[in-house]
Amino acid sequence: MDLELVTIGTELLLGFTIDSNAAEIARALASVGARVVRRTTVGDDPAAITDAVRDGLARTGFVVTTGGLGPTRDDVTKRAVAALFGAPLVVDPVYLDQLRQRFQRLGRGPMPESNRTQAEIPRGAIVLPNQWGTAPGLWLQGEPGVAVVLPGVPREVRGLLEHEVGPRVQELVARLGGAPTVTLSRTLRTTGITESALADRIGPLEDRFAPVTLAYLPTVEGVDLRLTAWGLKRADAERVLGDAAEMLKPVLGEHCYGEDGCDLAAVVLARLERRGARLAVAESCTGGLLGGRITAVPGASRTFVGGVVAYTNDVKVSELGVPQALLEQHGAVSEPVVRAMAEEVTRRFGATAGLAVTGIAGPTGGTPEKPVGTVWLAAFLEGRCETALRRFPGDRQHIRQRSAQAALDLLRRMLQ
Amino acid sequence: MDLELVTIGTELLLGFTIDSNAAEIARALASVGARVVRRTTVGDDPAAITDAVRDGLARTGFVVTTGGLGPTRDDVTKRAVAALFGAPLVVDPVYLDQLRQRFQRLGRGPMPESNRTQAEIPRGAIVLPNQWGTAPGLWLQGEPGVAVVLPGVPREVRGLLEHEVGPRVQELVARLGGAPTVTLSRTLRTTGITESALADRIGPLEDRFAPVTLAYLPTVEGVDLRLTAWGLKRADAERVLGDAAEMLKPVLGEHCYGEDGCDLAAVVLARLERRGARLAVAESCTGGLLGGRITAVPGASRTFVGGVVAYTNDVKVSELGVPQALLEQHGAVSEPVVRAMAEEVTRRFGATAGLAVTGIAGPTGGTPEKPVGTVWLAAFLEGRCETALRRFPGDRQHIRQRSAQAALDLLRRMLQ
Repeated sequence: MDLELVTIGTELLLGFTIDSNAAEIARALASVGARVVRRTTVGDDPAAITDAVRDGLARTGFVVTTGGLGPTRDDVTKRAVAALFGAPLVVDPVYLDQLRQRFQRLGRGPMPESNRTQAEIPRGAIVLPNQWGTAPGLWLQGEPGVAVVLPGVPREVRGLLEHEVGPRVQELVARLGGAPTVTLSRTLRTTGITESALADRIGPLEDRFAPVTLAYLPTVEGVDLRLTAWGLKRADAERVLGDAAEMLKPVLGEHCYGEDGCDLAAVVLARLERRGARLAVAESCTGGLLGGRITAVPGASRTFVGGVVAYTNDVKVSELGVPQALLEQHGAVSEPVVRAMAEEVTRRFGATAGLAVTGIAGPTGGTPEKPVGTVWLAAFLEGRCETALRRFPGDRQHIRQRSAQAALDLLRRMLQ
Repeated sequence: MDLELVTIGTELLLGFTIDSNAAEIARALASVGARVVRRTTVGDDPAAITDAVRDGLARTGFVVTTGGLGPTRDDVTKRAVAALFGAPLVVDPVYLDQLRQRFQRLGRGPMPESNRTQAEIPRGAIVLPNQWGTAPGLWLQGEPGVAVVLPGVPREVRGLLEHEVGPRVQELVARLGGAPTVTLSRTLRTTGITESALADRIGPLEDRFAPVTLAYLPTVEGVDLRLTAWGLKRADAERVLGDAAEMLKPVLGEHCYGEDGCDLAAVVLARLERRGARLAVAESCTGGLLGGRITAVPGASRTFVGGVVAYTNDVKVSELGVPQALLEQHGAVSEPVVRAMAEEVTRRFGATAGLAVTGIAGPTGGTPEKPVGTVWLAAFLEGRCETALRRFPGDRQHIRQRSAQAALDLLRRMLQ
């Protein structure tokens, strides 16, 4: 089933706000068999909203709107859509009562009169209860087709999609007969291999993935490979995606560390925890970024003990015990120093695994021998230490993020 | 001058990619006097592209497209738009030569034949040189109006907007006569004060900002206040924005730490550097995030020496010298412990300023007395130590980010 999306807000149009709802709605609807074929964004302007919704209904018979459902001046969407369906607005006493109770429950005092308009419902519309905010979603069905009117707050949109809109759209798709089709994706996450090296490995296979398509998505964390099955029955989509993933995995080998939202730090922590290891980190150019990523994982405290940010050479000597002679002979960005950092931090912190990073993140500090982007990494695990030299492209932030990722990856491969 | 924006890509429509170009283009054009009044997103489908561009031209006479200019199957936009202008595609020998040279220069070997289509230009179109990629922008002018065709890669779009499209649009606006008007914004960044407390302070003034409007934008770093002047001559817009900002600043007082893209860590480092101070950090729940933020600022090494991530109590004792008795008596999340962390890290690292954070980021670990979100902060500066207790809302990531921001803010206020 095809539909159109209309996102509403002068802020969106002016580029002050990024339209993240649009992506969220499209993904949620694709997974229940409805395909967004056009998206239109207009300002908080009744005539423009009316135009966009009417044209969308004329083309597909199904329009979802988001935004323009606030309690005050923003309330234009509901009025515009109701008019298209010839439905007068009438106060819904049940909903008005719920609104009043909500204000009471949150201890916000009596409900302001401006919120009363939120209880005005186009006659005949289905109210989609919004337990995440005050403006309900609306489902209008009539001569022009179906219009679903959603608020603009992302959290509320997400809740309404999952609990109200998704199930109803799925039901509608089923009622329309025919086999409902969905568009589904799976992403294999790789790191430590370039996009072109991946393409060389995968290229010869690509024809065999059909009807699944493959997209290369390079990020600072590596290259994600997104497999997509388009417009198939759910069971078929899942099967062909599974087949393609199974074909791809052996080709990717150890470069693949997980799927979809999988985080490399979580993978490393899980493997360390399984062998009862304890991790410490010593950071120079990443300045805490690596520890920050590790501790972003809930439950990191079961494995991670802490670390030292040794930004200056003095601190590398005093807090990590890196011999002054090593620093003088090889420089702070060198294999002997990164190795000493990893070994020392592991020992000092009573850990069994350690990671160290030292490099030149720029924009200044590069030399012809060690240009900006030069980074030494070390991973220490139960008596064994491995090091790696990398030359990362990109700006200061990219180099630091790539460094943290590469350090985690070095340890992951030792834990394989 | 009004115009419409057409963003092209099946990936955008499906919600796999967030449409960040759209926002960038709208902002850039607003600053030279052109207003995006509608945005349409369609897939990589010639008929849909043709429809959207034709309708946009009919409504406003000016359409900017982005996406669908790649060397292979994506090349549909150029063909669709050229057809609307009745312009046949002809190979531009000068551009073809430049393309070949580019491949040579980047050492990528001979240019693949698939890139040859990028040198095909609609007859009569102006080529907008793209030094950031291979597909040039195009400026078509004719009976249907003006169409500007841009690639989809954000870096290329940004470059073309600044160097090619912006100046031409500005010139066009001027040539169309009348006073060109622009929409400009200024953002005052605040932290350490809630949105509602700000509204209480600012409310009585708000009428006096007209014609400038004010938007409250809460983030994990604080509340940004965006002032916008709509559709004025540039000089007038700048003047009324300046007036509004001057009116607002005394009301915000020390809660305001900067404007627009200003980063609090950079503000703190600059103030420390001015007095020749050296900074160290001791982090528990933020796990390195605070150091990571500080070292994201280029030149941080002039002021920042390093820090300790003391995630476990053992490390707080062994690496920071926090007395075991304090931990046992008050718990790790307490004023005496955070104070000891700040003082000790400053002393041990030979610094003159120190920051410390200890808290409960969740999702587990909360108690009735110290629920998730409880965070103690300390800032030490030249012999003086200040502490603060906060209860942050949000999830683990939000609590950690708010903690880092609040720690920096505590020190900023001491440096006032």
